[in-house]
Amino acid sequence: MMNNLFRSNLNVINVGLSSFADSIAQAGGDVQHIDWSPPAGADREAGLALARLINHPAVEEANRQAFERYLAAQPILKAVEIASRVIPGMGERMLLHAGPPVEWDAMCGPMQGAMVGAILFEGWAADAEAASRLAASGAVTFAPCHHFDAVGPMSGVVSPSMPVWVVEDGAHGGRTFSNLNEGLGKVLRFGANEPAVLERLGWMRAVLGPALAKAVQTLGGVDLKPLIAQALHMGDECHNRNAAASGLLFKRLTPALLRTDVPQADVADVLSFIAGNDHFFLNLSMAACKSMLNAAHNVPDSTMVTVMARNGVEFGIRVSGAGDRWFTAPAPMVDGLFFPGYSAEDAAPDLGDSAITETAGIGGFAMGTAPAIVQFVGGTPQDAIGYTREMYHITLGLNSAFTLPPLGFAGSPAGIDARKVVDAGIAPVINTGIAHRQAGVGQVGAGITRAPLECFTQAINTLATLITG
Amino acid sequence: MMNNLFRSNLNVINVGLSSFADSIAQAGGDVQHIDWSPPAGADREAGLALARLINHPAVEEANRQAFERYLAAQPILKAVEIASRVIPGMGERMLLHAGPPVEWDAMCGPMQGAMVGAILFEGWAADAEAASRLAASGAVTFAPCHHFDAVGPMSGVVSPSMPVWVVEDGAHGGRTFSNLNEGLGKVLRFGANEPAVLERLGWMRAVLGPALAKAVQTLGGVDLKPLIAQALHMGDECHNRNAAASGLLFKRLTPALLRTDVPQADVADVLSFIAGNDHFFLNLSMAACKSMLNAAHNVPDSTMVTVMARNGVEFGIRVSGAGDRWFTAPAPMVDGLFFPGYSAEDAAPDLGDSAITETAGIGGFAMGTAPAIVQFVGGTPQDAIGYTREMYHITLGLNSAFTLPPLGFAGSPAGIDARKVVDAGIAPVINTGIAHRQAGVGQVGAGITRAPLECFTQAINTLATLITG
Repeated sequence: MMNNLFRSNLNVINVGLSSFADSIAQAGGDVQHIDWSPPAGADREAGLALARLINHPAVEEANRQAFERYLAAQPILKAVEIASRVIPGMGERMLLHAGPPVEWDAMCGPMQGAMVGAILFEGWAADAEAASRLAASGAVTFAPCHHFDAVGPMSGVVSPSMPVWVVEDGAHGGRTFSNLNEGLGKVLRFGANEPAVLERLGWMRAVLGPALAKAVQTLGGVDLKPLIAQALHMGDECHNRNAAASGLLFKRLTPALLRTDVPQADVADVLSFIAGNDHFFLNLSMAACKSMLNAAHNVPDSTMVTVMARNGVEFGIRVSGAGDRWFTAPAPMVDGLFFPGYSAEDAAPDLGDSAITETAGIGGFAMGTAPAIVQFVGGTPQDAIGYTREMYHITLGLNSAFTLPPLGFAGSPAGIDARKVVDAGIAPVINTGIAHRQAGVGQVGAGITRAPLECFTQAINTLATLITG
Repeated sequence: MMNNLFRSNLNVINVGLSSFADSIAQAGGDVQHIDWSPPAGADREAGLALARLINHPAVEEANRQAFERYLAAQPILKAVEIASRVIPGMGERMLLHAGPPVEWDAMCGPMQGAMVGAILFEGWAADAEAASRLAASGAVTFAPCHHFDAVGPMSGVVSPSMPVWVVEDGAHGGRTFSNLNEGLGKVLRFGANEPAVLERLGWMRAVLGPALAKAVQTLGGVDLKPLIAQALHMGDECHNRNAAASGLLFKRLTPALLRTDVPQADVADVLSFIAGNDHFFLNLSMAACKSMLNAAHNVPDSTMVTVMARNGVEFGIRVSGAGDRWFTAPAPMVDGLFFPGYSAEDAAPDLGDSAITETAGIGGFAMGTAPAIVQFVGGTPQDAIGYTREMYHITLGLNSAFTLPPLGFAGSPAGIDARKVVDAGIAPVINTGIAHRQAGVGQVGAGITRAPLECFTQAINTLATLITG
């Protein structure tokens, strides 16, 4: 038998390190290489934790519950109100920020710029220098949006007097919040705090917020899931591309706004502002995603990821079965296309709560339905479909409320399972804007990044110690 | 040598009739079948005409010119005006209809219903019976929209006092026209003529038209090609799916309308009407396509198709080098999905000027960019891409102003070459609504059909006799 083996031509399947396959191919052998790496990146502790969690009946049951609660959620836009009045527990001298906790000294440039702007906007300091001193003095409390069921793109700054979207889960109750989108260019969320930025914020507080509040009240609420579903059929993925969703929201708001007592001049300003911003829906998409994921949070033993968020320094995740714990790692850089005059050297690390969209199965996870986005983030339409297909390997199931026409109307891959991420070594894909590393410059590009595997490994290690079943 | 051939296994390539291949395969032979049929359907006269036209330098040069004029056209929405005041040559007792010429007696049910409605709307008769008598008496002139640079979906009815879109070609001059879209359900274009239909038409004439006219004037015009291009990146093909384009137009019109002196109550009505109709852009898409194709029309020796239109009885085409001639054949049926309660037996044959969109390289030709449309017309997203790919075989080139993300941002297949249609036997694909065969019932479904090859064969035969070069 051995003799026969050595006499026949070699037909080799190589698993793992490709260098073995390369040598065989160079020697003229017929070799099929299969990508493979050991689970948990060959980390012994994580491997043992994984072995404990995989196929564990209590975990399977908990994930089934968490995923079903996510699927059943019905995020409904219910109101627009002032942050400090509507967000439970938000203090009067508190500023919310994106990502996991971070103190003033450690914040990245754009986030510091945003906090200075928010302090000026609230009238707590007279100029930028005084605002910085105040921020450093400890007299202002900084806290993650996620600690208050809120989300904000980029710096994610929510200050007490800002108007916020209020989204209610019609299936389970519970509210989530997001600030309103300011548009592109010089904006607070990218750390700009010059007078024009504060003036716009003032108009948003005085005119835009109250007008939207009346329109939403006239509508009696806007069911956000069907709106997102429709936008996913119109080339949006509802993170980095919201052109269709913003248009759909605009079509809903306009006739309602015209039935309110808002003066026609204000109506014209409000509608021009919204019509001029194809990202207007982003913040509402995020609040809707937060709502769906809140429904799945705090199911003991569940390994479903319910938050992914970045503060520009650290990337943090939360997992359903691990409660309020954050699992963090250094925030990655974003690989993408830069606007003219900028390059990778200008970029801040990954920033913002907007990865809540990927956590909810849209954004980068639904990129296959948004082929036109590759003109903004780089790559080809085939890459976009590839990202979506890859995410099916690390998710608990399909969200049949969010079907993707280019993938034969398959539901989007949803419910990231931290076990599968660690087991397969496939990190969740995120497509996102890129902020300049300095405060106030603004967006310098857009692209693709991956959540750090380390966050998921930490989560798995902790979950293995918490298991109740 | 022959002995060797008979000893070896058969490896057969079969061209044409598949039955030969089937027998070989049944006998265990290895056979590759290639679809092929003789050019011009083995029609000797058409074959000779084709032979004269294919690779003819004058035809090649004429097609290059026609296609370049089509590509260079810049359709701009310039105004909304009353039909009889703005359409040159339109008589006071004239009704325009879709498709090639057809007289009252020969019209299909929905078109007769529409004409009766138009007569009532114009006040030329007091009731439906009197309107029918008037139509049959010869006192009303019926003429194709296309004879007046106009287009209309389904019955395509344009009566003298209706408001129409006015589109100007910014590159070559020349105007095209289309009526305004009434929405779905009971509407004139499907042959409904009950009081509610006429009342809506009255409101469109009294309020909608003048309001739109002011908004368009305030905007100083709307460049339609970039708007269509953007919609093609948002899942529209701008014939049977206009959800994105209607939204984009709505976003342009709204702020403008709010800057006019139109009373706020009318503004609210107008914007609610537009926001409630995802097909609102269709008629404008058609006028833009007509504009691009008018630019390519009347180039001697050109075999480029510049009109495809159906009156519910006949399908007619016009070809650039054959001037005002129509080449007609019986209108085909549409294969598609029917609304609940209806079936193929209820359907009228293919109807309307809306195939002008396919003639201009969008609609069915761009279906690959609109995968979600298959839920409306049937088939799979892969079929949709297949239709677009097939159309590259019968077109003069790619329209790089209309890129299709799912096809790697390739330009849409545009400029139907009548020679290629006849040579390859590939009929242009059209996706379209399906009207009930009786007046007034309305739309009963949507689906896919093909232009009859016979129209193209006739065109080729005529063009071969006209050749000047």
